[in-house]
Amino acid sequence: MRDRIQNPFFLDRIMTAEDAAALIRNGDIIATSGFTGAGYPKAVPEALAQRIKTAHDAGRAFTVRLLSGASTGPQLDGALAQVNGVAFRAPYNGDATMRARINDGSTLYLDTHLGQVAQKARQGQYGKPDVAIIEAVAITPDGQIILSSSVGNTPTWVQIADKIIIEINTWQNPELAGIHDIWGGVRMPPYGQSIPLIHPGDRIGSSTLTIDPDRLAAVVITDEPDRNAAFAEPDATARQIAGHVMDFFEHEVKQGRLPPSLLPLQSGVGNIANAVLEGLNTSRFENLTGFSEVIQDGMLSMLESGRMAVASASSFSLSPEAAQRINDNAAFFRQKIILRQQEISNSPELIKRLGVIAMNGMIEADIYGNVNSTCVMGSRIQNGIGGSGDFARNAYLSLFVSPSTAKGGKISAFVPMVPHTDHILQDVQIIVSEQGLADLRGLAPVERARAIIAKCAHPDFKAPLQEYLEQARQHSFGQHIPHHLPTALAWHQRYMETGSMAG
Amino acid sequence: MRDRIQNPFFLDRIMTAEDAAALIRNGDIIATSGFTGAGYPKAVPEALAQRIKTAHDAGRAFTVRLLSGASTGPQLDGALAQVNGVAFRAPYNGDATMRARINDGSTLYLDTHLGQVAQKARQGQYGKPDVAIIEAVAITPDGQIILSSSVGNTPTWVQIADKIIIEINTWQNPELAGIHDIWGGVRMPPYGQSIPLIHPGDRIGSSTLTIDPDRLAAVVITDEPDRNAAFAEPDATARQIAGHVMDFFEHEVKQGRLPPSLLPLQSGVGNIANAVLEGLNTSRFENLTGFSEVIQDGMLSMLESGRMAVASASSFSLSPEAAQRINDNAAFFRQKIILRQQEISNSPELIKRLGVIAMNGMIEADIYGNVNSTCVMGSRIQNGIGGSGDFARNAYLSLFVSPSTAKGGKISAFVPMVPHTDHILQDVQIIVSEQGLADLRGLAPVERARAIIAKCAHPDFKAPLQEYLEQARQHSFGQHIPHHLPTALAWHQRYMETGSMAG
Repeated sequence: MRDRIQNPFFLDRIMTAEDAAALIRNGDIIATSGFTGAGYPKAVPEALAQRIKTAHDAGRAFTVRLLSGASTGPQLDGALAQVNGVAFRAPYNGDATMRARINDGSTLYLDTHLGQVAQKARQGQYGKPDVAIIEAVAITPDGQIILSSSVGNTPTWVQIADKIIIEINTWQNPELAGIHDIWGGVRMPPYGQSIPLIHPGDRIGSSTLTIDPDRLAAVVITDEPDRNAAFAEPDATARQIAGHVMDFFEHEVKQGRLPPSLLPLQSGVGNIANAVLEGLNTSRFENLTGFSEVIQDGMLSMLESGRMAVASASSFSLSPEAAQRINDNAAFFRQKIILRQQEISNSPELIKRLGVIAMNGMIEADIYGNVNSTCVMGSRIQNGIGGSGDFARNAYLSLFVSPSTAKGGKISAFVPMVPHTDHILQDVQIIVSEQGLADLRGLAPVERARAIIAKCAHPDFKAPLQEYLEQARQHSFGQHIPHHLPTALAWHQRYMETGSMAG
Repeated sequence: MRDRIQNPFFLDRIMTAEDAAALIRNGDIIATSGFTGAGYPKAVPEALAQRIKTAHDAGRAFTVRLLSGASTGPQLDGALAQVNGVAFRAPYNGDATMRARINDGSTLYLDTHLGQVAQKARQGQYGKPDVAIIEAVAITPDGQIILSSSVGNTPTWVQIADKIIIEINTWQNPELAGIHDIWGGVRMPPYGQSIPLIHPGDRIGSSTLTIDPDRLAAVVITDEPDRNAAFAEPDATARQIAGHVMDFFEHEVKQGRLPPSLLPLQSGVGNIANAVLEGLNTSRFENLTGFSEVIQDGMLSMLESGRMAVASASSFSLSPEAAQRINDNAAFFRQKIILRQQEISNSPELIKRLGVIAMNGMIEADIYGNVNSTCVMGSRIQNGIGGSGDFARNAYLSLFVSPSTAKGGKISAFVPMVPHTDHILQDVQIIVSEQGLADLRGLAPVERARAIIAKCAHPDFKAPLQEYLEQARQHSFGQHIPHHLPTALAWHQRYMETGSMAG
């Protein structure tokens, strides 16, 4: 262990996960590392879940309020949700067990623009964290912390939490040292300053994190993998969507509206994102860059092939195979990848300045191109808005991608009116389904509707959408964004009643 | 005229408004100065309207596509709408005649985040403007242009338009010289750079505008006032809202969450804004600053009293009395006021860095605090989203204010579901009506609903809103944001059918 923890003060604080978890009390606010299932603490949350279960079995109340970078994994969100131990969750969840708790009303959930969490936390909007639980790969001789596979909100949590618990995860490669870039220049207004970054590859901060030793409560040793998911192999639909996106990029370059190396790319995870990145990796575009919140398998392959020169993010979200490649070639990837705190990776200032091309998935869009990214039928949370709002509003180009149908064709991704809006029509410039690409730039609402129905909707739903538009134009209070309110949400109601949106 | 136009090249280009308007053809894209009814061209648009009318009377098609900074006045939007001469309008309209054209479907309208218009225009999203028509107060001996009472998108229009027409308006005070600050550092990605501004009072650019003389097509002399509106005297409701806002600021300062001089203020126009600014002007807060898109009567009074040290905006929106005070004391106000291009006044980078306190009006909010700022009954445009999205999302504190009812109590400003969303719940932190203030920071959706119903809703609508929430919780697909879709929009439908939202 002395190779991982080279500072005696930290060595002295080593204890078991159970002893560390005993420091946490009913009602505490817990703030953890972790982002897209990478770099979250594992042993202490599991021990805490056990403590909570014991308390509940004995009839005692015990819940915590849980903050993180973004999504974590089964040992954290999963374990705590399993014992119904979380009263409040922010800013993002991707765990199925926790999702069920939120949707049955057991856990309150405030999903938040990921780039804004740190400032809101410093403002006190989530309350003062009692305990920060942070995963790291090593402690340097002078007591600096080398984070693991994400940065997230960790620099903020260790600044504002009363107590700090560090998990040293020996499963994580110590050669991640040097991949992080933590900017110390964040200041609260009225003392804010500009972020000195003008290229995705710029390093502007420190590769290690400093903490106040007086607040170090525990060091816990773990050896557990991140929640890596299997590679989401692109299917035919994903490849069709990617094909439309490639054609669009080619066209924009030909028109002189994008440079030949495009502009920094932001992309989510999943099989469509992988298909698009795979398409780019076999394209004629060269010297690409990434400025995203997450590095997934697709970007890793582009860095390996040389198609992408550098990628900036806050975290990894990799398949076990890709994680292994990072581990085997850490020295190579350290030169190509920069992991930043999420208020930098998702900074509106930087997204705008760099001219990021944002590509995000969605649940559905309405005919006018308002996008619902989060709430199925308007009420049931899927994951959360994540960084999509940070990127879509400030992007040079904002693309939303989705298959045109879901549930075997019973749900249309294009509907008369979304029952929940995450991205207003002004922030949605291009929509792509396997049917085609609707370029909505410069179009007024009714023109947008015609383009979305013509280009993106599934053939089974084109006529009903067209009918809705006509009906809306006949009955609407105004013709700016025509709607017929009595039937605007009827498709969703029908789905809940019959299992199909089709009439 | 030689005192206003001190350069012979510009003097040589003087012609009548009719001759200048003759340069504009059917189908042209016209890009004008003007923002919140200030500094827009007047004579050429009126002459153009006359040309269009003549063409229409002769059975010939003649429409233009019209771009501006923001709202203009009766001589521009009004005159062109009167003759049905505008096929497409962006990014903002506040004129009643134009609004009617949009709502009857004659004119397509794309309202756009005001801070994003310039970049979208440079990207070509609105097409290449054929003619820029710009109001100025004077031309310097070396051919520099001194703009009038707004900056808006003028620096961009003169860069990208094929032809430039300048109106020299002798009604505008030439002592406005020195009040403008036009930053020349805007560069398109991948060459973007940081905006070197860290205080609202920083001057970072030039007080005059340079144009390409080869594209100067005409200089027209006018002498017409801006569309100044009478001062909107605060009524009892507005003063109650202002009182809640003052109490909130006092509390935040006491809690140490705001400095004693608060943070830079953004405020809209109208009687509520005036009441809030009047409240601040008689408060114990000192050394306030403004970082807004518009300077209205309230801010002017604060600058005069010394309560506000400096105000940054893109434009004025003043009563005739206040405009006269500016004219009488231009030398004083030039030291206290800076007018910037709207991509700087509304820059997300700067709004975030400075920590702006954003205060915007709304049409309605739903119980979860999603805000509709633009579309009455979801379809009929009121004005547009304007800069509210630039400010609300990036603000340190984001307040939305509204009386709790409209139309003599027949419309509730708080409804089960908004039929159009401009500001998603994540961007709406504090809602204020005359009934009270709901501090939504850190609250999950259902907690937000309880706070909004308890604090903001009118007593007549509290029980029906509570009933909807209970019904939604019983029938909702998920409990994250409970909704009952069959009745979610029923209040709006009832209003359209019966003239009242009340059941």
